[in-house]
Amino acid sequence: MPDIVNTTPLTVADLSESQLLQRIFPRLNAGDANVLLLGPGDDAAIVAAPDGRTVISIDTQVADQDFRLQWNNGYRTTGYDVGWKAAAQNLSDINAMGARATSLVVSLTVPPETTVGWVEDFADGISAGISGLGAGGCAVAGGDLGRGRELSVSVAILGSLDGRAPVLRSGARPGDTLALAGTVGHAAAGLALLESEVPVDRLTREQRALLDTQCRPRPPLAAGPSARDAGATALMDISDGLVRDGGRLADASGAVLDLDPAALKQLAAPLQDAAALLGTDPLDWVLGGGEDHGLLAAFPADVQLPPGFTAIGSVKARATNDGPAVTIAGKPADTVGWDHFAD
Amino acid sequence: MPDIVNTTPLTVADLSESQLLQRIFPRLNAGDANVLLLGPGDDAAIVAAPDGRTVISIDTQVADQDFRLQWNNGYRTTGYDVGWKAAAQNLSDINAMGARATSLVVSLTVPPETTVGWVEDFADGISAGISGLGAGGCAVAGGDLGRGRELSVSVAILGSLDGRAPVLRSGARPGDTLALAGTVGHAAAGLALLESEVPVDRLTREQRALLDTQCRPRPPLAAGPSARDAGATALMDISDGLVRDGGRLADASGAVLDLDPAALKQLAAPLQDAAALLGTDPLDWVLGGGEDHGLLAAFPADVQLPPGFTAIGSVKARATNDGPAVTIAGKPADTVGWDHFAD
Repeated sequence: MPDIVNTTPLTVADLSESQLLQRIFPRLNAGDANVLLLGPGDDAAIVAAPDGRTVISIDTQVADQDFRLQWNNGYRTTGYDVGWKAAAQNLSDINAMGARATSLVVSLTVPPETTVGWVEDFADGISAGISGLGAGGCAVAGGDLGRGRELSVSVAILGSLDGRAPVLRSGARPGDTLALAGTVGHAAAGLALLESEVPVDRLTREQRALLDTQCRPRPPLAAGPSARDAGATALMDISDGLVRDGGRLADASGAVLDLDPAALKQLAAPLQDAAALLGTDPLDWVLGGGEDHGLLAAFPADVQLPPGFTAIGSVKARATNDGPAVTIAGKPADTVGWDHFAD
Repeated sequence: MPDIVNTTPLTVADLSESQLLQRIFPRLNAGDANVLLLGPGDDAAIVAAPDGRTVISIDTQVADQDFRLQWNNGYRTTGYDVGWKAAAQNLSDINAMGARATSLVVSLTVPPETTVGWVEDFADGISAGISGLGAGGCAVAGGDLGRGRELSVSVAILGSLDGRAPVLRSGARPGDTLALAGTVGHAAAGLALLESEVPVDRLTREQRALLDTQCRPRPPLAAGPSARDAGATALMDISDGLVRDGGRLADASGAVLDLDPAALKQLAAPLQDAAALLGTDPLDWVLGGGEDHGLLAAFPADVQLPPGFTAIGSVKARATNDGPAVTIAGKPADTVGWDHFAD
């Protein structure tokens, strides 16, 4: 009997878990064959850990908390966006240890009305994020699919240090140069545009790029290992904002990060136009916005910064425990980034 | 100024993420010092992978989908229950590869009204599950805390094969003995009791134990590595039911699992009493109930079963692709276990 034409899109409730997984598996990045020793389909996967160590991190995104499926300005978040961002955030955590991602596992929780097309698009977004960010050797090793009222995705990621020492948050020393790879504030500007009344088709190409940074961030994944090789003393992923995350690095290192106002001004320049449109100060985005997943690094003063890094300040000695952890030209930086819980 | 007496319990909305993490970290199992090379607090953790490979799996539980916070019979799921079960489910996946768990990372999403006490209890439950199940060497390496409308927990777990080959689902061969370690159907009986009108204080000690198996399962974690060492040809965690998961093992192995009715009767015996109370057939729980996380194994016929395993049938050749994957004394086993999506 021929199929009757059906205009209702297939939802996850129409398929069994294994039918759904069969649609997803072929879309997932397989990584290097010598890394993914056993792929999806058994109780667990097996991944090579060539130097006898594994770097591991986990990160979750929840709809209406970490992103909106439907934004105020009319933009609809695609499955591709959610998959890309989940990959990018986790790849950035491995990068921030000076490591190289080898594999990740994905757990996706979806409401029953979610279309199968959305889930396929999500799988494509993960794979595109991995390869688009230059991490093609990172395999999707397995996952878990479940149903819930709320769309949510957790990714756990593994990385290799390839026999080298990790670069921690705690190693910055007074006199070090503070440097940034990637951007800060672009994703926050994109978020403000998404939450504004300005429709997407009214945005300039540059403003549209800010929106893209929020939905599909591009952390500088080559920068972690190259900073490590150049002798970086501390590394950290900026996910909650330069001042907040910088404060964490400063606290872990027992130091103060002093930001250079001229460098901040340069970081704010590409945001000037969007800030004018929305009537805000671009410096707030630079100091408080995370989610670009730029890489903050400290280097000894005599080290030549690796490609992709720009000096944005310096590390100073901390006189007292209750002084500010982050300063701008010596004055306390009060703007704080986003916190998951505090109001 | 002295604290004013405050009877409102502290919720997660009253604390910053870092304040909350500071309450959780001390409660987490630290594992072996030579395994957890870098613990929580940086962008990622570092875990030893002594034989150059890492076994990895991820699993998510969502409130009102995988468990209820408030059950029909009056029982309230505690944070300790949720933490224990998250640890147990994941430890079981590593066990089912014939491996030993080395570490796990936890991502917890909670509604803002969740009390801090609940989250602390959750952390205690994870640690108690790990040590209570004999996996004390498994470190909690890190995690992620976030807010959502729906309570949800994802755990990713790592394991070591200690230089040995993994035991896959696909290795069962005709003539093998089919064996079980742990239980099947107890958690399903416990679920039925939780969803019944019978209050907890009316239950017998044995019935209460069934409820405990649902809320705090006890997978047989010594059984995976011992089955591997004894020469098991296939291993699988029973999480969705003996018939459904057995069918997956049979399909992967290109064989048929034939269950022994006498063995099934023995597995049903401890459930007889609860089944009589609820007016159901205990065999449905044995065939369709997962969540005890018993371990299904195939062994060559000449192997003496390791301690903890009971023979429950045998592996037969599969004549055709469309025949039943699981039979009972040669007849198709129709009862199916739980599926996340199909109705």
